[in-house]
Amino acid sequence: MQTPQQLRQHYQYVRQVSEQICAPLVTEDYQIQSIEETSPPKWHLAHVTWFFETFLLKLHSKDYQPFHPQFEILFNSYYETVGKLHPRPKRGLLARPTVKEVYAYRHTVDKAMDVLFDMLEQYPDDKIQSFIELGLNHEQQHQELMCMDIKHNFSVNPLKPAYRSDLPTSPVGNTFAVQWHEQTAGVYEVGHDGNGFAYDNEAPRHPQYVPEFKLANRLVTNGEYLAFIEDGGYQQVDLWLSDGWHHINQYGWQYPLYWQRDGQFWQEMTLGGLRLLNPHEPVSHVSYYEADAYARWAGKRLPTEAEVEIVLAGKPLQGNFFDQEHLHPQPATVDGQWFGDLWAWTATDYHPYPGFKPLEGSAGEYNGKFMCNQKVLRGGCCATSLDHMRVTYRNFFYPHERWAFTGIRMADNASK
Amino acid sequence: MQTPQQLRQHYQYVRQVSEQICAPLVTEDYQIQSIEETSPPKWHLAHVTWFFETFLLKLHSKDYQPFHPQFEILFNSYYETVGKLHPRPKRGLLARPTVKEVYAYRHTVDKAMDVLFDMLEQYPDDKIQSFIELGLNHEQQHQELMCMDIKHNFSVNPLKPAYRSDLPTSPVGNTFAVQWHEQTAGVYEVGHDGNGFAYDNEAPRHPQYVPEFKLANRLVTNGEYLAFIEDGGYQQVDLWLSDGWHHINQYGWQYPLYWQRDGQFWQEMTLGGLRLLNPHEPVSHVSYYEADAYARWAGKRLPTEAEVEIVLAGKPLQGNFFDQEHLHPQPATVDGQWFGDLWAWTATDYHPYPGFKPLEGSAGEYNGKFMCNQKVLRGGCCATSLDHMRVTYRNFFYPHERWAFTGIRMADNASK
Amino acid sequence: MQTPQQLRQHYQYVRQVSEQICAPLVTEDYQIQSIEETSPPKWHLAHVTWFFETFLLKLHSKDYQPFHPQFEILFNSYYETVGKLHPRPKRGLLARPTVKEVYAYRHTVDKAMDVLFDMLEQYPDDKIQSFIELGLNHEQQHQELMCMDIKHNFSVNPLKPAYRSDLPTSPVGNTFAVQWHEQTAGVYEVGHDGNGFAYDNEAPRHPQYVPEFKLANRLVTNGEYLAFIEDGGYQQVDLWLSDGWHHINQYGWQYPLYWQRDGQFWQEMTLGGLRLLNPHEPVSHVSYYEADAYARWAGKRLPTEAEVEIVLAGKPLQGNFFDQEHLHPQPATVDGQWFGDLWAWTATDYHPYPGFKPLEGSAGEYNGKFMCNQKVLRGGCCATSLDHMRVTYRNFFYPHERWAFTGIRMADNASK
Amino acid sequence: MQTPQQLRQHYQYVRQVSEQICAPLVTEDYQIQSIEETSPPKWHLAHVTWFFETFLLKLHSKDYQPFHPQFEILFNSYYETVGKLHPRPKRGLLARPTVKEVYAYRHTVDKAMDVLFDMLEQYPDDKIQSFIELGLNHEQQHQELMCMDIKHNFSVNPLKPAYRSDLPTSPVGNTFAVQWHEQTAGVYEVGHDGNGFAYDNEAPRHPQYVPEFKLANRLVTNGEYLAFIEDGGYQQVDLWLSDGWHHINQYGWQYPLYWQRDGQFWQEMTLGGLRLLNPHEPVSHVSYYEADAYARWAGKRLPTEAEVEIVLAGKPLQGNFFDQEHLHPQPATVDGQWFGDLWAWTATDYHPYPGFKPLEGSAGEYNGKFMCNQKVLRGGCCATSLDHMRVTYRNFFYPHERWAFTGIRMADNASK
Repeated sequence: MQTPQQLRQHYQYVRQVSEQICAPLVTEDYQIQSIEETSPPKWHLAHVTWFFETFLLKLHSKDYQPFHPQFEILFNSYYETVGKLHPRPKRGLLARPTVKEVYAYRHTVDKAMDVLFDMLEQYPDDKIQSFIELGLNHEQQHQELMCMDIKHNFSVNPLKPAYRSDLPTSPVGNTFAVQWHEQTAGVYEVGHDGNGFAYDNEAPRHPQYVPEFKLANRLVTNGEYLAFIEDGGYQQVDLWLSDGWHHINQYGWQYPLYWQRDGQFWQEMTLGGLRLLNPHEPVSHVSYYEADAYARWAGKRLPTEAEVEIVLAGKPLQGNFFDQEHLHPQPATVDGQWFGDLWAWTATDYHPYPGFKPLEGSAGEYNGKFMCNQKVLRGGCCATSLDHMRVTYRNFFYPHERWAFTGIRMADNASK
Repeated sequence: MQTPQQLRQHYQYVRQVSEQICAPLVTEDYQIQSIEETSPPKWHLAHVTWFFETFLLKLHSKDYQPFHPQFEILFNSYYETVGKLHPRPKRGLLARPTVKEVYAYRHTVDKAMDVLFDMLEQYPDDKIQSFIELGLNHEQQHQELMCMDIKHNFSVNPLKPAYRSDLPTSPVGNTFAVQWHEQTAGVYEVGHDGNGFAYDNEAPRHPQYVPEFKLANRLVTNGEYLAFIEDGGYQQVDLWLSDGWHHINQYGWQYPLYWQRDGQFWQEMTLGGLRLLNPHEPVSHVSYYEADAYARWAGKRLPTEAEVEIVLAGKPLQGNFFDQEHLHPQPATVDGQWFGDLWAWTATDYHPYPGFKPLEGSAGEYNGKFMCNQKVLRGGCCATSLDHMRVTYRNFFYPHERWAFTGIRMADNASK
Repeated sequence: MQTPQQLRQHYQYVRQVSEQICAPLVTEDYQIQSIEETSPPKWHLAHVTWFFETFLLKLHSKDYQPFHPQFEILFNSYYETVGKLHPRPKRGLLARPTVKEVYAYRHTVDKAMDVLFDMLEQYPDDKIQSFIELGLNHEQQHQELMCMDIKHNFSVNPLKPAYRSDLPTSPVGNTFAVQWHEQTAGVYEVGHDGNGFAYDNEAPRHPQYVPEFKLANRLVTNGEYLAFIEDGGYQQVDLWLSDGWHHINQYGWQYPLYWQRDGQFWQEMTLGGLRLLNPHEPVSHVSYYEADAYARWAGKRLPTEAEVEIVLAGKPLQGNFFDQEHLHPQPATVDGQWFGDLWAWTATDYHPYPGFKPLEGSAGEYNGKFMCNQKVLRGGCCATSLDHMRVTYRNFFYPHERWAFTGIRMADNASK
Repeated sequence: MQTPQQLRQHYQYVRQVSEQICAPLVTEDYQIQSIEETSPPKWHLAHVTWFFETFLLKLHSKDYQPFHPQFEILFNSYYETVGKLHPRPKRGLLARPTVKEVYAYRHTVDKAMDVLFDMLEQYPDDKIQSFIELGLNHEQQHQELMCMDIKHNFSVNPLKPAYRSDLPTSPVGNTFAVQWHEQTAGVYEVGHDGNGFAYDNEAPRHPQYVPEFKLANRLVTNGEYLAFIEDGGYQQVDLWLSDGWHHINQYGWQYPLYWQRDGQFWQEMTLGGLRLLNPHEPVSHVSYYEADAYARWAGKRLPTEAEVEIVLAGKPLQGNFFDQEHLHPQPATVDGQWFGDLWAWTATDYHPYPGFKPLEGSAGEYNGKFMCNQKVLRGGCCATSLDHMRVTYRNFFYPHERWAFTGIRMADNASK
C-alpha cells in the first residue's frame, strides 16, 4: 500500500489529469449528454469529486462542511444505498451548477483532501488510505469514460468538430499477419492475489481448468472487418446471435458506430475529427454482437476472459494507452498488440468469482450488482491510464453497447 | 405598411429584445432543451436569424455570403420544403456552434440586413418589406417561446435557480368577483381584415353566427383552481374528456405543471425562482384537458375563439405583457383582465377559416400545416410583446401541453 | 316515440341482426382482436347485451338475477362511472366465457327483456322506452363496428380468408364525372330537432352561418386516388398536415390500408376475401390525413359537417347500406352517391353543439367525453343499417384511423 | 439409438401426449396468446408437426405433398434460414387454420410418418432416425411450454378458470429442514458423453475445476419466500442486481407471478384454478432476479450449473414430473427433491461448452444462437416428461422471465 506521501502525490496527479482531459473543451461542450449511457463532462468532474466528499471528507474530516447540500443527489451515480439520485438520462439538463462552480467544488474538495493527507501523515490509517486509492481508481475509470463520452458527444454534431486538432494520424503502413500464442490445457490460477490495488470483482484468485487454446497476438483490423461487411456479414442470419440479429435489424446497423461513407471512401469519426478510415488500425466501437458474428464468419471464436488473462500474465504491461496521447487505436507492430488500444470483448459473462465478497457498505455497490447481462472485456484501451491497468482488470459492458473503445481479438481451439 | 425607415427601426428594436431576454443567462443555460417541445435559447437566437438569412438575404442581397454552409440544416425549424432538418428532439445536443458564434451569426446577419434596408430606402419593395415584417413577428413569437422554454429549463433543475432574481412578487390582495360580459346572438364578422400585419391564419375576415353568451372579465385564479383540486377534481372521471382522463392518469398529474407542495404550503416555480403560490394570481401552465375539466366542475364552459374575439374587439389593447417585465401573470384588477397575463384556452380546434389561403412558397408552412389536433388560444400573455398582439391573433397548442403560459377564462350560455 | 309493441318488434329485429352478422364465423373467429382499436366479435355480442342488462334489467326488472357477477367488468366498454373495466387491449385474451356461453347470456337477457316488454305494454314508461331505443341504436352502432373489426381480423391473417364467399363483386363499368351541388351562403339550421330518436351529440338544432360552397355528388374513386399515388402524393411534404406527414412516415404508409400489390396488379382485401382493385369503386379505409392530402392535391378541400348536412337534408335517404348486403362500397351511379357506401371525412372537429347537454347518469358518457382530437364523418356506410341512419348523424374517428369504412367527398369554395 | 420399431412406438406415444394435454381445452382456449413469450396451444400443435413435415417428410418422403403451402411461414418458430416467419407476437391473431384443421394437419403428417417408418424398417438410416428423435424431443419440449403457456393464458382471465378441475391439492404437512449435500473440490467432467440422445448444447463432455461447495437437497418453499417478502425483501436495494432492481420497480413486482392477496390470505393461480397458497410447496414462477435476491437475503447463493450437474449425477432420476399428473410443484419429502417440480435457476449464463459444435443446417439454429443474455436452469419440472429428462439437460430463460415453472435451489461455499 502506498504511504500517505505517495498517495498525496498520486492524488494530485490523478486529479490533474481529469482537468487536463477537459482543457480542450469550451463551456458548451461540458454540458452535453448525447445518449443515456453517457454523461456530460461536467457531471464526471463533479461526480468523482462527490466520491471523495461522500466517502472520505464527510466521514473522516470533522470540520468539513459540504460544498452544497444538494450535490449529494445531483452527483451520485448509482449508489442507491447512499440516498436519492438525479435520474441518469437527465444529467445533461443541469445547466447549474455551472462549469465554473464545478471547478470550485473540485478545488474546495482538493483543499480539504490536503488537510486529510496532513492528518494521515501523522496518523496513517489503512482503511482510509485504501478508500482514497479506490477513489483515485474510480476517477481514472471516469477519465476513460470522459474520453469515450466526449467522442460520442462530438460525433452527434453534424459539424463533426474535433476534440483535439493536434492529434497525429497513424501511419498507413501494412497489416502484419496474426501470430497465434498457443497455450496447453491445465488448471490455472486466475484473478487478483491481493498484492497491490485491485477492484473487489478481480478477487479471489482461484483455480480454473482451461483447455488447450490459441490466442491472436493482435486485434482485428478495419480492413479485415471491411471484408466481413463486403461479404454480406450483416445480412447473413446464421452468423448472428438471436438477440444480436434483432438488434442490428431494429437499429439498422450496417457498420461500426463511427463509420460513414462518402461515395467510394469510408470515413471515421475520431477525437481528432472526421478522418479517412485506415485499414491497418484495429476496428473499434463494435458491439459484442458484431464481434461475435465477425468471429463466426472468420471461423474462429472470441476468447474467454481466463484465456486472455493467462496469456497477458506473461506479457509486458505496455501498449497504446492514454499516456501515449494518441486517443485512438494504432496499427499493431510486429511485436504484437497485447495491452491497450481497445478493450477486447471476451465470450465470458460478467459474474462473481467463486467466493467473491463485495466491499462493505455503499462501496459494495461498485461492482457486484452489475454482474448480470454484461460481458467482460480485457486489456485496456487508448484512453486508459497505464498506471490504472492490471492483468486481472475486468471491464464490462452490455453486449449491444458501442460507444466505448471496444475491439475484437480472435481465439481458437488448439485442435484446429 | 411600415416605410423602410420605420421597418429598420422596428428591426433593430425586435432584434435587441431577443438579446435582452438572454442577458441573464450564463453560457450553460443557452444549451438546455428540457423536453422535446422546447428548444435551447441558443437555438432560438440562431433560428430567427436563419429566417432572415434564408428568406431575405439569400434571395435579395446579391453579395451576401451564407455565414456557414450547414446552418441551413441546423437552424431550420420545420420548413420541410426548404430542405433537410436537424431532428427537433436533438437541438440540445449541439455544443457547437458556441454561444459566441451564434451571436457572431446574428451580428453578421444584422449588418447584411442593414445593407438591405439601405437598398429598400432607395427602392422600396412591398414584397420584401412584408417578408421582413413576417420575420420580425416570427422573432417576437420566438421571444415568447424563449421565456416559456427558459422557465421549463430552469424548472427541471433540482436547484430551482431563478432566471431573474429582480422580478417583483405580486401583491397578496384579494380576488375580485367575476363580472360577466353579456353578448347578444347574431352574425358577427371575425378574422383579420387585411389592414396592417397579420398572419395568414387570421384571414379572411368572415361572418359567423354566434348565439347569445357571457364571458368572464378575468381569468380563473390559483385559489379557485385549488378549490377544484381539493374537491377531488382530478379523481372524478365524469369531469374529464376521455383523452384527458387517460393523459392525467398516465402521467400522474394532480396539479398544474409548476406547482409543488412543501408540507402545508403550495409553491410554484416562476422565472423569479420558487415562490409561494399566490391564490389571487391566475392559474397558469394548465393543459386544455385541465381547463376543460375545471370548467365542467364550475358548471360553466370554455369560450369559443369567436366569442373571445368578439368581446376583445371592444376592449382597449392593454394588460400585463412582456413590456411590463413581470414575466408572470398578475392578479386581476377591478377593471378586468382581457388581454395579456396568460393565453386562454378556447374550445375551438385550430382550423382554416373559410377561404383560407396559405402564403406562397415555404412561408406557407408557417401555419396551415398545423391545423389539426390543436386548440386555439387567445389574448396574449405576460411574455408577449404588446406590439405583437392583435384582437384577431390565433395561438395554438396541443391539448396536453402545459409548458406555455396558458390559463383559463370561463364562458357561459346566456340562458343560465 | 315507438309504442311498446313496436319497440318489442324493433328489439327482436335488431338483436337478430347481430347474430346474423356472426353466422358466417367459426368459433375461433369470434376470439380475435387484431389491433387495440377493434374488439373480438364475441365481445361485441356480449357488450351490447350488457348494456340492456345494466341500464334496463338491473334497474327496472325487479326479479332479474344478473347472468354472471363478473360480466359487469368484462363487458363494460368505457362507462367509467359504472365501475371497473377490463382493459381494452386485452379483450382478445378472454377465452372464457365461451362463444356458447355468450349466446346463452344473450338469450337469457332477451327473455328477461321480453318480460320487461310485457310490463311496458301494461304500464308504458317513456324514460324506460327511450333507454331501450338507445340500447338498440347502440347495438346497431356495434353491428357496424363488428363488420369493420371482422374485416380487419381477417386481413391480418396471411391466408386472407373470406368472411363471406357469396358476396358479389361490383361491375367494372366506368366512373361518372363529378357533378357539383351548389349552395348559397346563409344562416342555416343544423342539428337534430328532437322529433324521433337521435343521439345527444346531434342536438340542439342551432343556426350556423355557412358561406357559399359546392359539394361533389359522389365519393372519390380508387382510380382517382391511384392518380394521386402515382403523382407521388405520399412523397410531397407540402400536401400534408404536419401530424399526417409524421404519421405516414413513421408507419411507412404508401397506400390505403387494405391495398396490396401483386406485380402489376393492385389487390384489395374485402369481406369477400382478396379481390382485384376496381378503379370505379370509392376509395376506402383512408385516414383523415390521407383524405386531406388528396383534397389539397386535387385543388379542392374536405367539406365541413354543416355543409354536408345542409345538402344531405335535401336528398332522399337511400344508398348502399348494410341492408343491401354488399358489405363493400359500390361505384356511384348517375343519380349520385349521397348516403351510404363510406363514412366521409369532414374537416370539422368533433365538438359539442352550442348548448349541448349530455344525457344524465352514465349514459352521459356515451358521446360527450370523446369531443376532442377526433374528426366528424357523415353519411353512413355499407355496414350501417338504413333504419339507423339520419341526416344529422355524427360519426367520429381519430384522424389517423383507417380500419373503419371511411372515404372521401370533395368540397370547394363557390368563387372558383 | 432406437430401432425404427422402437422409434415408431415412441413417436406414437409422444404425439399422443400433445393431444392429451389439449383434451381439457375448449376451442377458444386454443387461440390465446396472453403475452409475447407464449404461444397459443393451437400454434404449438401445428409447429411441432411442421418440424416433422419440414425436416423429414419434405426431404425424405418422395411422394409427400405439403398439407398447405403457407403453413411453412405460419408455423416456423425461429428457423430464419428456412425462410420467412409469421411474427411471433401475432400468433394469437390467426383464427385460421381452425383447431379442426390443425388436427387434420397433425393426422396427415402422422400418416405420412407411418409410411416413412415402414421405409426405415426396410432401410434403416441413422441420420433420418436421429432427426426423428430430435423432432420427438422438440415436441416434448413444447409439451412443457404448452402447460406453462396454458397456465398463463388462464391466469389473465379475471374469471380464473381451471384448466383441469380434477387436479389434487398437495397435503398441508410441514417443511423439512434443508440437508446440504457437500462436495469436495476437484476437476470434474461435465456435459453429455454422446451415449443416447442429447441436444447439441450439452456437448462436448469436458473437464471443469469446481471448488468445494454445498447444495441444498430441496427447493426453497413458499413459506421461506414469504419470510423474505415480509422482511421487506422487495424494498431493500442492496439485495438486488441492478437490472433486477430496475425491473421490479418498473413493473411493480412485489411477489411471485401467480400470487394474489385476498385480505389476510395469499392465493395462487394454478392449472387447477385459484388455490390457497400452501407454504410447504416450493415457491414457483419467480424470475432470476428474485431468486438471486432471495439467496443474498438468505446469506447463501445460487449454484452454478456445474455444481448442480455434479450432484444430480449421483442421484436417481425420479421426482414430480409430468407423468405424475400433479402439474404443480409438491412439498419435498424427507428423501429430498433433486429432479422435477421446478426448473431451478443457476448462476451460470447460457454459453457454449468449450469445443461446442452446433448441428449442421437449419437445426443448428436450435440452441446456439440463444447463447447470450440468458441463464441456465437445471433439473426439470412438473410439466417435463420423465423420459425427456437427463442429468446434463440445460434449459434457459431470460433473467426477467417468470411464466415458466421456475424455482430456487440454494448453494453455499464450503468454508462457511
